[in-house]
Amino acid sequence: MGASYSKEEKSYLIKVGDRIRELRTETGLSQEKLSFACSLDRTYIGSVERGERNISIINLKKIAKALKTEPSELLKF
Amino acid sequence: MGASYSKEEKSYLIKVGDRIRELRTETGLSQEKLSFACSLDRTYIGSVERGERNISIINLKKIAKALKTEPSELLKF
Repeated sequence: MGASYSKEEKSYLIKVGDRIRELRTETGLSQEKLSFACSLDRTYIGSVERGERNISIINLKKIAKALKTEPSELLKF
Repeated sequence: MGASYSKEEKSYLIKVGDRIRELRTETGLSQEKLSFACSLDRTYIGSVERGERNISIINLKKIAKALKTEPSELLKF
């Protein structure tokens, strides 16, 4: 999206994305169903899971709620 | 900052800000020392602690590192 991140930052975004994908698949939700549940675009969810987004804590909270978990759980890996 | 949040979202940002202030004071750091340690502006740290910022996970990670804790700890309250 134009923003440039350090290698460490990029690696962190990828870890968060992997964690979100892990929790989503555990919950049995498709990207489409998750995006509907948290009122975020499916392409946005896809880019978050690929570690392409420096997501804000409000969107982190929306995703956590849709996954029936706490925001802090999305940052545990 | 122009962005408008729901009451629930605003309340969440305030909780995160309070939690960061709590951890910062426990660590014995001033806002100035914390801002220096994480390379963020002191006025930015102030606005985060007042719940005025929808902080990104990369900045959350920077603050957590400066407070010698994990990003997930900043979202536990």
